[in-house]
Order: sequence, then C-alpha cells, then structure tokens
Amino acid sequence: MTSEELSVRKLEQGDFDKGFLTVLGHLTTVGDVTREMFEEQIRRRDAVGGYHTVVIEDNSRIVATASMVVELKFIHGCSKVGHIEDVVVDPAYRGKRLGLKLIEALIESARGDGCYKVILDCAEGNVPFYEKAGLVRKEVQMVRYLDR
Amino acid sequence: MTSEELSVRKLEQGDFDKGFLTVLGHLTTVGDVTREMFEEQIRRRDAVGGYHTVVIEDNSRIVATASMVVELKFIHGCSKVGHIEDVVVDPAYRGKRLGLKLIEALIESARGDGCYKVILDCAEGNVPFYEKAGLVRKEVQMVRYLDR
Ligand SMILES: CC(C)(COP(=O)(O)OP(=O)(O)OC[C@H]1O[C@@H](n2cnc3c(N)ncnc32)[C@H](O)[C@@H]1OP(=O)(O)O)[C@@H](O)C(=O)NCCC(=O)NCCS
Ligand SMILES: CC(C)(COP(=O)(O)OP(=O)(O)OC[C@H]1O[C@@H](n2cnc3c(N)ncnc32)[C@H](O)[C@@H]1OP(=O)(O)O)[C@@H](O)C(=O)NCCC(=O)NCCS
Repeated sequence: MTSEELSVRKLEQGDFDKGFLTVLGHLTTVGDVTREMFEEQIRRRDAVGGYHTVVIEDNSRIVATASMVVELKFIHGCSKVGHIEDVVVDPAYRGKRLGLKLIEALIESARGDGCYKVILDCAEGNVPFYEKAGLVRKEVQMVRYLDR
Repeated sequence: MTSEELSVRKLEQGDFDKGFLTVLGHLTTVGDVTREMFEEQIRRRDAVGGYHTVVIEDNSRIVATASMVVELKFIHGCSKVGHIEDVVVDPAYRGKRLGLKLIEALIESARGDGCYKVILDCAEGNVPFYEKAGLVRKEVQMVRYLDR
C-alpha cells in the first residue's frame, strides 16, 4: 500500500504478533515483555480508561505507534489534559507522514474526550516535527529516575 | 505550627471546605468548580486509580498541594511513570520548604507504585526549585490548546 492509504487504528491484543513491541524498540528499551504481560497491560489500561494507543499496520506488521493518557484535573473546571507518549515510526517508514497521522488521530481522541490541551515532551531535534502537528514549545521537562 | 511541623497528607473530600481550590487558584484558573464537581472528580480519580494528590494543612486551611498521575506503559517491561502536575504553595507559605515536602511525598508514592521515573514540566524560573528536589532538566515540553 502507498503511505497515503495506510490508516490509523486502535491497538489490539493481536498486535503482539504483528511486531508492536519491535516498533517500540526503535524508541527505547522494551525489555522482556511476554504475551501475557502485554495482554494484561492492555486489560489494565482498558479497565482504568483514558488510555489511547494508536497503530499503523502494513503487510500485517505494525509500522508506527503513539499513545496518550488522559488526566483528570481539578483546575479549569475539573478539566482534562491529554499526555502524548511513546511516538515512534519504523525507520523504513519515516518521512511518509505516518507520524503526523498518529498525532492527528490522538488529537481527535483528546477532543472527543473533552481535553482542553494535549502536551508532550520531546528531544530538541523533534521540535520541528511536532510543530508541523500544530504544537508549540512551552516549558522545560524535568525528570528524576528512581532506583528501586 | 512551625513549617517543620506541617505534614503532608492525601487529599480528602472535606478539603473543599478548607480552601483546596483557593490554593490551586494561585497556580492557574480554577473556574466554577462546585462541591458536587469536586466530590465527583475525586470519586472518578479513585475509581480509575493511579492518582495521588497531596496537601498540607495549617489552621484548617489547605496551604499547599501537588498531584501525580501514574501512567501504565508497555516499554521498559510494562513499567510505570509518575507525571507530577499542579504543584502550588500559598504565597504566604512559600520558602518554608513545603514545596519540597510535597515533591518528596509524591516521589515516595511513585516508588511505592513501582514507577521507574517521575517527570514534570515547569517554567524556566522553577527549574532551581525542582533541582533541589533531585530532578534534572531533560527535554522540551510542547503543547497544543484545543478549541472545543
Ligand atoms: C519523530 C518521528 C515520530 C516522526 O515520524 P515521521 O513519520 O518520520 O514524520 P512525518 O513524515 O509524519 O513528518 C511530518 C513532517 O515533519 C517533518 N519532520 C519529521 N521529523 C523531523 C525532524 N526531526 N526535524 C525536522 N522535520 C521533521 C517531516 O519532514 C514532515 O514535513 P513535511 O510535512 O514538510 O513533509 C520519527 O522520526 C521517529 O519515530 N523517530 C524516532 C523516535 C522518536 O524520536 N520519537 C519521538 C519521541 S518524542
Ligand atoms: C514553586 C513553588 C511550588 C515552590 O514552593 P516553596 O514551598 O516556596 O519552595 P521550597 O521552600 O520548598 O523551596 C525548596 C528550595 O528551593 C528553592 N526555590 C524555590 N523556588 C525557587 C525558585 N523559583 N528559584 C530558585 N530557588 C527556588 C528554595 O529557596 C529552597 O532552597 P533551600 O533548600 O536552599 O532553602 C512555589 O513557589 C509556588 O507555588 N509557585 C507558584 C506556582 C508554581 O509556579 N508552581 C510550579 C508549577 S510547575
């Protein structure tokens, strides 16, 4: 299929066998995630609600994914904020506007859920990509890693 | 009480009457949040799970608060990340290490929940405060506001 024809859909249990974790591996360390762990994590997220993970499939392989978790706040009239996380496109599929499609799909879900904004953190080098998706630079992300 | 004696506890339904929304108003617009909306939002967050809102009370008034939402991920062995949000101390109580106490309490909760890191976004001017809480600068936060 041409990249224009590839469409965005929700993550499904069967995506374990379609290389969902492999594409995430192009973003960061995935580690040992068994089928059972994957299925349980989907169930847990479904039970909680507010999780949106979208994927793009080509030739029965997942070639791109992005996630969002919707946070329930007290401010702004008990409003909601969408946190976009874990955006990655298979290296062989980059530059075909798949990344953009994922972000647009999550923004639609955020609107549907009544979020007043979506936010994300990214490396300096990815700022131009997110600007093309209509986001603008805001604050500084800070982190503390926890040794357990 | 001296500021050393003020302790951190979880948000409770009764905090509506102790000025919880007033202290949030020193951070941003709270808008029209009725008692019913506040109570319903606590119930919703409790049902979802993964929400931690801590407060500090003095003379039956809430003088500081901070929140965290724990995100369930697939990466890093289906790990968890704590997103710290909406940190604010009443202006009359700033500089007494209450902000630090809140962040430390949330970091303990993040550890308890098995998070491998905590992250937050802040204005440039607040970076030194979060550095005192052991966080370091990481990436760039980006935002898109959604007109509904
Ligand atoms: C960042 C990433 C998701 C972008 O996905 P992609 O499908 O290649 O991007 P798209 O083709 O949708 O790009 C949309 C537009 O942004 C531009 N763009 C994409 N990445 C860019 C970058 N790093 N710098 C400048 N422009 C960029 C594209 O050229 C395209 O521009 P156009 O509309 O003028 O054609 C992808 O490169 C990736 O997976 N990177 C590695 C993982 C990663 O860093 N993820 C983000 C974590 S915050
Ligand atoms: C930022 C804020 C929460 C800090 O709370 P606080 O209780 O005043 O801070 P603390 O007293 O715990 O500060 C801990 C240390 O950080 C330092 N610090 C605090 N804010 C600082 C700042 N903006 N710049 C430099 N240092 C700062 C304190 O001096 C103190 O240092 P010390 O350990 O050497 O004494 C508070 O100023 C506030 O509510 N600001 C307005 C709302 C806001 O910006 N919230 C953050 C949203 S991201």
